[in-house]
Order: sequence, then structure tokens, then C-alpha cells
Amino acid sequence: MRVLCDYLTIQGFLTKDQGSYALTQESAIFLDRKSPACLASMSAFLGSEPMRARFDALTEAVRKGGSVWSEGGDNTKPNDEFWVTFARSMAPLTRPGSEFIAALLHAEEGKPWKVLDIAAGHGMYGITIAMKNPKAEIVALDWPAVLQVAKENAQKFGVADRYSLRGGSAFETDMGSGYDYVLLTNIFHHFDMPTCEKLMKRVHAALKPGGRAITLEFVPNEDRVTPPTAAAFSLIMLANTDSGDAYTFSEYEKMFRNSGFAKSTLHPVPEMPQQVVVSEKSA
Amino acid sequence: MRVLCDYLTIQGFLTKDQGSYALTQESAIFLDRKSPACLASMSAFLGSEPMRARFDALTEAVRKGGSVWSEGGDNTKPNDEFWVTFARSMAPLTRPGSEFIAALLHAEEGKPWKVLDIAAGHGMYGITIAMKNPKAEIVALDWPAVLQVAKENAQKFGVADRYSLRGGSAFETDMGSGYDYVLLTNIFHHFDMPTCEKLMKRVHAALKPGGRAITLEFVPNEDRVTPPTAAAFSLIMLANTDSGDAYTFSEYEKMFRNSGFAKSTLHPVPEMPQQVVVSEKSA
Repeated sequence: MRVLCDYLTIQGFLTKDQGSYALTQESAIFLDRKSPACLASMSAFLGSEPMRARFDALTEAVRKGGSVWSEGGDNTKPNDEFWVTFARSMAPLTRPGSEFIAALLHAEEGKPWKVLDIAAGHGMYGITIAMKNPKAEIVALDWPAVLQVAKENAQKFGVADRYSLRGGSAFETDMGSGYDYVLLTNIFHHFDMPTCEKLMKRVHAALKPGGRAITLEFVPNEDRVTPPTAAAFSLIMLANTDSGDAYTFSEYEKMFRNSGFAKSTLHPVPEMPQQVVVSEKSA
Repeated sequence: MRVLCDYLTIQGFLTKDQGSYALTQESAIFLDRKSPACLASMSAFLGSEPMRARFDALTEAVRKGGSVWSEGGDNTKPNDEFWVTFARSMAPLTRPGSEFIAALLHAEEGKPWKVLDIAAGHGMYGITIAMKNPKAEIVALDWPAVLQVAKENAQKFGVADRYSLRGGSAFETDMGSGYDYVLLTNIFHHFDMPTCEKLMKRVHAALKPGGRAITLEFVPNEDRVTPPTAAAFSLIMLANTDSGDAYTFSEYEKMFRNSGFAKSTLHPVPEMPQQVVVSEKSA
């Protein structure tokens, strides 16, 4: 225990004074499970056995040009255990992004909205909009097992009466139509460009005229090596997917144009490595 | 390949300019196998399957207070494959330490020395002394399979005629006697304190009066959290050994005093995380 605590002190997670250890301010906020901002649950997904197995096979992934992991490897098939773990673990990190999106769309104005949340996972992006806008109706789309987590969260945050579920593939399930907004948070990076376009065409069809697609993504600069976290996300996708990537804004612009969106704009999320791409369907 | 090279650029191992990648200065010196200072071979030991398995079991090691890895886990038994890999991989990093020791002892004065190199491994600490002092005779002690690597290196560096081998355990094999110097490089950290004392008593007996034990080690400050690399070495030993540790200087002083050495002095190796402890046997 002494060795572990010394190591955590060296790494900046603890302080040590006269042989006594204490949490640093950052650890107290982000790693103490009693803290509302605790991120510790994320280790259940980021440190999960499949994740570790994929990074163990990184050399093979580089040689192949994609993940060597086969179960649902192209990320268009259901992979319930993996994505339920994701949904149960990764909600803490969504707060800055989900609050940014709600503010960007002026959810607080309380207009009657119909919002589709694609690959909802824990559901927090759509749920946050519903919390800020009492007239927003959210439709969550994901694999049925994953949607149970989103449903629990909708209940927990008191928006279950305006929250409905559509279980199935984002590439095949009837999405409904006439949406004011479609949320696409952390989904495109799993696929190659033709697959992204295929999905975005479906989104275009589901939006009402003047409606907007809201994409949250790791968007590196055109040099693909800055900013570091967004650019490095590309390697995470190489290890984890058949042909996913961290696409640049010019690549998103082109894919979304091919899918029917004439113009897209880029909005950095403050203090987060992600950015929001807003794409409007012609009125 | 693009994703890998971008990632290596982000991490500072490559530069990227107009879509072309090049080695950084550090990578060219330390990671290009054509460079004489290349450290790349070390990955064969540090990234070896046993090493990875031990760190995968770090949680269990913390709970147990020592490695859960059982084959030769207390590091007093032979473990040929592991230590031959060590000997074949880790020589590049010895250069600053071995040259520092040779200079500290004034090897260049060319006095007739008899030097015992305990747990010689690749043999580079003793071989460097033999290269600087043409009148030094080196006796290398290690497991027989490991000594073959030291012997190859002694031939490669032209000192084989003054290089002899003693195969076996440092705790049991007849070490010989009348040594001017006994080298103990990176060995004590594998053991608990009583075991260290047992070894150092044997060393004391093997030295001639006025002879010196030369210990190269990771020696953290008394706070055990600085300097970072030496202090963090403690965790590496927790994962890898039954009861090894990165001992402080006061702990070494005490152990060596218990083994018969009245006084020890500490000498930092420039630009390296290790330090040298010199302990003289009374004349």
C-alpha cells in the first residue's frame, strides 16, 4: 500500500506529507466516488477486457489497417455487452459537451422540439436537452439492450414522459421523420466515409426542412497531429474499428455535403477535446 | 501507417511537415537501430510477456504486497529465459553508469585489480572496467545460461583473456576471495532487507581488506516520492518481485553496516536516475 500510494503521489494523484497521504484537488473532484463530478466509472469501459485486448493487438491492427478484433468489429452490428458497459460507464464525461449543445441550440427558449438521439448510449445528450427545454420530445435510437440504460437515465432525470425508444440499427431501423434536431454524438468516428455518408443521408431524410444535424466529434486540424487529444483519437479508432477515424472538418464538410447538407459550421466545446458540427437542412 | 505516424508525431517521436515524416533528434539517436546509442533492444525485456503479465496483475500484487507471478518469483532462483532476455536487451542503458563507475574508481590508472561482477547479466559493468584498465581481471557471476551473454560481450569488446566465469547463485556459489572491487549493479532491489544483508555479508568476506563494494541502484530520497524515476522504481519491484524495493540511502547504510561495512558514501550518476553506493571494507 505504501508503494502504491508513493507511486500515486509521484504521478500527481495524491499528496504526501510526513508519511500521510491525501487526495490532490483534482483527485478529490474527479476520482472520489462521492464527488458528483467523479469520472471513475469510465475505467470500466476504457480499461475493459475488449479494449485492452484490442490495444494488445495494436501492431497487428497497424499492419491490417484496422482492428483485428472480430466480434462486431465493424461497429455496425449489435455488440450489447460492450455498448451497455459504455452506456453505464461513460456518462460523466458527457456533461460539458451535452450542456454546450443544449446552450448552442438555445434549449432554454423552450420551443416545441422533436429531437432524435442516434446511438444514444447513456442518453445524456438528449436527456440534457429535455432537461433544459420542457417542450422537447426526445427519441432515442440504439440497440435495445443499450436503450434500457438511456431509459433508466431519463427516469432518473425526470424526463421519461417525453422520452421514447427506437431499438435497432441506425442504418436500418425506421428513424421516424420531421425532427428539429438529430444528435450524432461520437458515432461517425466508428465508420469509413461511405458508411458515414449513408448514415447522414438517412439523417437528412429524417429532419424537417430547416432542421439541423448536430455532430459531436474529435475533429483534428488538417495537419492531423494537432490538437493532440483529437488527433490521437485516430489511433484509438485504428485499434478498435475496421475503418473508423478521427475525421477533419474538411472531410466532415465533404461527407455532409454529399449527404445533402449544403453547409456545416464548426464549434469547439470549451475545455474539451471535442467539437460540434452543425449542419442545416435547406428550408 | 498514417495513423501510427501521426500518433508518433503527437507523442514527439516523429516530425511531420507537408505530409512527410522524419525522426526527431532524440529518435534518431536512441531509437534508430543504426545508431550506436540505440535503446530499442530494451523493449524486448521491458515489453516482454512476463513483464506485461506482472503489470496486468498489479492490483493483485498490491493486495498481496508482492508479485503474484510464481516462476522464480523471489528472484533468488534461476529463471534463465527471463534473465538471458535481460542480458541480451538491456546493455545499451548501462553505458552512463558503467563509465561513471570506471571513472569513479580511476580505472584509467591501470592498477592490478581483481574485480567480481555479481549478477553480471550482459557483463557491461565489469567489461567497461576491463576496457579502461588493462590490468583488471574480471570474474563474472550469474546463472550459467546468462553468463554466455557476458562472455560474448567480453569477446566482442576484446577483454575475454581477462574475463572468467562463475556460474550459480550469488547466495550459494563460491565467490572466490581477495577482490579489490565487487560490483553489485541493480541486484539489491530484487530482495527484502535480510536477503540483501545475507548477500552483502558474502561480499564483505570476498573483498580483500581495503576493498570496496560498488552498488548501483535506484535510491529514492527519504520521502520515497522524489526523485520521480528512482522512487517509482519501487512499484516496478512490487509488480515483479516477492519483496524487493527501491531502498533509501539510510536503508542501504544500515544494511551494509549490518554486513560489516562501517561506512558507505552516495554518488549520483550524472543524467541517470541511478546512484552509486561505495562501501569500503576496513583495511
